[in-house]
Amino acid sequence: MEDIKLIEVKEEILYDNIKQAGEVRERLRKTKTMLLNLMSSPGSGKTSLILQTVEGLRGSLRLGVIEADIDSTVDAEKVAARGIRTIQLRTGGFCHLDAAMVTRGIDAIDLDELDLVIIENVGNLVCPAEFDTGAHKNVMILSVPEGDDKPLKYPLMFSVCDLLLINKIDYLSLSDFDAATLRKRVLALNPRITILEVSCKTGVGIGSWIDWLKAEVEAFKRPK
Amino acid sequence: MEDIKLIEVKEEILYDNIKQAGEVRERLRKTKTMLLNLMSSPGSGKTSLILQTVEGLRGSLRLGVIEADIDSTVDAEKVAARGIRTIQLRTGGFCHLDAAMVTRGIDAIDLDELDLVIIENVGNLVCPAEFDTGAHKNVMILSVPEGDDKPLKYPLMFSVCDLLLINKIDYLSLSDFDAATLRKRVLALNPRITILEVSCKTGVGIGSWIDWLKAEVEAFKRPK
Repeated sequence: MEDIKLIEVKEEILYDNIKQAGEVRERLRKTKTMLLNLMSSPGSGKTSLILQTVEGLRGSLRLGVIEADIDSTVDAEKVAARGIRTIQLRTGGFCHLDAAMVTRGIDAIDLDELDLVIIENVGNLVCPAEFDTGAHKNVMILSVPEGDDKPLKYPLMFSVCDLLLINKIDYLSLSDFDAATLRKRVLALNPRITILEVSCKTGVGIGSWIDWLKAEVEAFKRPK
Repeated sequence: MEDIKLIEVKEEILYDNIKQAGEVRERLRKTKTMLLNLMSSPGSGKTSLILQTVEGLRGSLRLGVIEADIDSTVDAEKVAARGIRTIQLRTGGFCHLDAAMVTRGIDAIDLDELDLVIIENVGNLVCPAEFDTGAHKNVMILSVPEGDDKPLKYPLMFSVCDLLLINKIDYLSLSDFDAATLRKRVLALNPRITILEVSCKTGVGIGSWIDWLKAEVEAFKRPK
């Protein structure tokens, strides 16, 4: 049966990936560079959040960005235009990043010069949740127009993240999105997750996101 | 290298899938049941469109629905509650449907009793575009909040579809989505695609979608 063959291959790939992800994490510990993996559906606001983050961290933390895209460089161009060290990874049809691709991304960066590298993963709520990129922190965005039922349908994504950003809260007035219901559903899957509400368009809530980020980088750099 | 191994496996799977998709299409031609594959990002409105379609076709065409979900039955329950023959396929982590999964879905349906079967694919703009389900028509939804740059980032999805529905046009007033730019980008990839604007919430444009659907089913059933 086709599906059984496919599962075997997938497990082998996942095992190799976990090993390589551990190597990425260890390597970045040595240079004290925190790696953050940002995931969401297409169009939830990953690039907009990164552009807000570039401004929010200016003068405090040294940021690099790894942009994953199937077949374009539009996002990388926007980020690089702000003077940020940006690496474009073209996945060539793959629907997620894995640790091998991230390794090639960080090979191209001088890690000693950076406090934080943000990976913009491929827009997808499924496979990116399964493939450990080697990041120290996983962050996801859910935008209000996507609906409050997404934790029921993509539970793994909500389970693997340290922080959930609810974006596009400026759409709340037009939407039947219920933030209390969403929180309940997310916390049932992942009681340790932090949830923040933001609008990358209006800037509401971005300050809390920047504060969270600075505190996490500080904790990461502290000698253990 | 990991990625080279993965590509070989993928090509083999894709080849087997194309063969099986052809068998699905042929089988449904015999019962004159049109199969339509509906794709989009998570939260773009696939289930809402299907619920509108159930009402729009009531009394004219006999509809069945195959719902694909990774790990829930919430969508299938909503559709079945309208008295529609609904099959739930749990993909168990897979980010797309393939022809083998669809075969198991149609095995569970009495095709002689249906004019049209709609597949709600997994919410994902990447892999569903690569895996032929055996459908006679591919339809995608892009919702206004996702942005008008999606054809640049997910070109294959826009290339394989017969119809693009721009949903949530009730959000246009809050958005910088440029419908003219989107049309230009989509038509550059796929000059033969039909584009319709709808709002599943307000019902605007749903009549045109139902008209398109009826005309396609009629053309499908006509003796060649």
